[in-house]
Amino acid sequence: MSALPATTQIRLEQDGPILWVRIDRPEAMNAYTATMGAELAAAFDHADGDDSVRVVVLTALGKVFCAGADVSAGAGAFDTASGAGAKNFGGGSGGRRSDFIAAMMNCRKPSIVAFNGSAAGVGLTLTLPCDIRIAADHAKFGCVFVRRGLVPEAGSAWFLPRLVGLATALKWCLTGALVPAAEALAAGLVSETVPADQVESRARELALEIAANCSPVALALTRRMLWQLSAEDSPRGALAVDAPLNIALGQQADVREGVAAFLEKRTPDFPLTVSADMPATPWWRDNPTGYR
Amino acid sequence: MSALPATTQIRLEQDGPILWVRIDRPEAMNAYTATMGAELAAAFDHADGDDSVRVVVLTALGKVFCAGADVSAGAGAFDTASGAGAKNFGGGSGGRRSDFIAAMMNCRKPSIVAFNGSAAGVGLTLTLPCDIRIAADHAKFGCVFVRRGLVPEAGSAWFLPRLVGLATALKWCLTGALVPAAEALAAGLVSETVPADQVESRARELALEIAANCSPVALALTRRMLWQLSAEDSPRGALAVDAPLNIALGQQADVREGVAAFLEKRTPDFPLTVSADMPATPWWRDNPTGYR
Amino acid sequence: MSALPATTQIRLEQDGPILWVRIDRPEAMNAYTATMGAELAAAFDHADGDDSVRVVVLTALGKVFCAGADVSAGAGAFDTASGAGAKNFGGGSGGRRSDFIAAMMNCRKPSIVAFNGSAAGVGLTLTLPCDIRIAADHAKFGCVFVRRGLVPEAGSAWFLPRLVGLATALKWCLTGALVPAAEALAAGLVSETVPADQVESRARELALEIAANCSPVALALTRRMLWQLSAEDSPRGALAVDAPLNIALGQQADVREGVAAFLEKRTPDFPLTVSADMPATPWWRDNPTGYR
Repeated sequence: MSALPATTQIRLEQDGPILWVRIDRPEAMNAYTATMGAELAAAFDHADGDDSVRVVVLTALGKVFCAGADVSAGAGAFDTASGAGAKNFGGGSGGRRSDFIAAMMNCRKPSIVAFNGSAAGVGLTLTLPCDIRIAADHAKFGCVFVRRGLVPEAGSAWFLPRLVGLATALKWCLTGALVPAAEALAAGLVSETVPADQVESRARELALEIAANCSPVALALTRRMLWQLSAEDSPRGALAVDAPLNIALGQQADVREGVAAFLEKRTPDFPLTVSADMPATPWWRDNPTGYR
Repeated sequence: MSALPATTQIRLEQDGPILWVRIDRPEAMNAYTATMGAELAAAFDHADGDDSVRVVVLTALGKVFCAGADVSAGAGAFDTASGAGAKNFGGGSGGRRSDFIAAMMNCRKPSIVAFNGSAAGVGLTLTLPCDIRIAADHAKFGCVFVRRGLVPEAGSAWFLPRLVGLATALKWCLTGALVPAAEALAAGLVSETVPADQVESRARELALEIAANCSPVALALTRRMLWQLSAEDSPRGALAVDAPLNIALGQQADVREGVAAFLEKRTPDFPLTVSADMPATPWWRDNPTGYR
Repeated sequence: MSALPATTQIRLEQDGPILWVRIDRPEAMNAYTATMGAELAAAFDHADGDDSVRVVVLTALGKVFCAGADVSAGAGAFDTASGAGAKNFGGGSGGRRSDFIAAMMNCRKPSIVAFNGSAAGVGLTLTLPCDIRIAADHAKFGCVFVRRGLVPEAGSAWFLPRLVGLATALKWCLTGALVPAAEALAAGLVSETVPADQVESRARELALEIAANCSPVALALTRRMLWQLSAEDSPRGALAVDAPLNIALGQQADVREGVAAFLEKRTPDFPLTVSADMPATPWWRDNPTGYR
């Protein structure tokens, strides 16, 4: 368990196998800044490299998850000469620490977003590279870009249609209207909604279920496979990866433990770690998405 | 506000920022003809070029939206020697005025389909390149091709799975059965259903909400981004577009107005127009879809 | 009607236009073996080649559909030196008879999966290349790979996100938890749920509806178009196929019969057969998926 990175706009806490990442600007409705983007990238980089972190939970302090880019600078907030809103949304080279999209995509640990409240603009889109989302039942979601004269950022023109389908993505992004949690649930953006005061406890329960039952190496490989191989033209691309990979994994200690625990009806204790035991897979760092 | 194109099988009406496009062959259950296809293309070309048109609403007169290709010529209706059904479904070069698929895809204004009643065959597929669909709650939808010895046309083998998912598209297209509005709603084909006598008023309300609150330039860019960038292999393609685009937009007048209106809690009055102010984007006319 | 292939772990029965494929290892909860994979491939190859088979229905005997790969060999079940679990999941060259994924993808007849009960691991993923799925309302579905130290196999990292969306696929595959039938229905994995004792009769009804009303040639073309063309970057790929194909079909006997039957409000009697009358389509065997 290595030291947590120093942060000022997000609060990091390790809670057993969970790294809690809490956006911490409640006085500004957790509005996004370039500093916050860089700190989110650092948090996911940390989670990727520390074997003691098994699951990341991203949430926020206060009643709002994130009101979007900080526009406290006024009408010029998105002018790069004066503002910071339109910067740092992951468009740079993959190596920049401020590129939180790359940090999330490259992170080998699964991530859960716990929407304690509403999310608008980048407050929503910054969560799309995460794996599972749950929400307070009063939360609203706003793809508000067109109402500000902007376009969907942070790769969301790619992420959102894959997550909720193109029909829903078009409706949300072309009206810019606020979407109630129930509609987000029906569309699959969030997988469940709970009362606001239960969002953290439910996210914790889900994270602990993953940490207790799932092989870290298998999780790392599975999330990469789903994000990357689903974008291929043909199932042959997925088959070319999954068949040799499962044959390789089938001879490793985690599979022996996983099958033994299943047959003995007990919780498994997987020996392999992400830092030391990821199988050599030719596709792992050389794939069309540009992420590892 | 330029003159509306002359039409015989669709009726065009400008209503403030809305261009109403009403299929007008109720005596023939609005069956599709090659003339209708060419007129639809002309209507969307007009909408694209006229700044006074902010939103297109496509609906139909009578109780049915469109019964599909006109088969009044009988069993030979789809024989190109005698019939017109299988022609003009957008398969030609993008420049043909009869190519309504290209006209819809190229149109820089958002479009709403208001299904006043049922739609079968091309009556359904011609609406798939539009952006938002709502329906009368008694409407039914039929991907009836296999029941006529035909295959899904007008690019619908691409559009339908992207809009409703592959599982649903397979079921609808391999049975050819009529799908009730409630099932179309659950699948996301339509985003809401209302009583038949409220379909036009609800579509109008939605169109006016878009026109009142959203930047025309941002809308034009956003619909293109969602249709085109969602088909890429990686979010990097979307990031390569959205990051420089938002930086460019951030220095323009619409963003200043959008943020100012938001902070002042008033309706924005966006100064930029689609005809004059679209940002130069290298990807805009050079992208793999072949649409601008 | 040619002789059915000899099988030991699946039971084949022809019932009018339906080929029933019933997994037949109820004493082992129908656990998957390499022999079963090869027999499934043979069954779908048979269905593809025999014009008397119009629809395939895949189900299983007993209370469970398939508990996943056979792990009766114990902790070493997935070690290729001793076990068979990780083999034969379609990763080989398309021509191998044990490659059931290729056999299902290449089969020109639509297929319906009738989940008589729960399906886990490959018990679920082996059904994903089929076209329509219905389920007993008590069935549960488990993408349990990460709980065994394995990754999603049989191309499911490609299939599952296309069928249910990426958000749902991530949640199911990263928790490994059992998914109730109602959640599978909401996600679109299955198109309907019925009481367990009605699963076969409902699947039969659906299969007979397809066989009675739909052109075999149009079905064969439509299923291929949906699986293959939906993966293209642009609708232009679909248009380049569907426009010439419908013009060709429009001059054939099935379309004349389909339109005549529709106008006369009777059931059609399509004359064309898959074995003799498939139109020559340049894309048919030369497409990016590697399937015909």
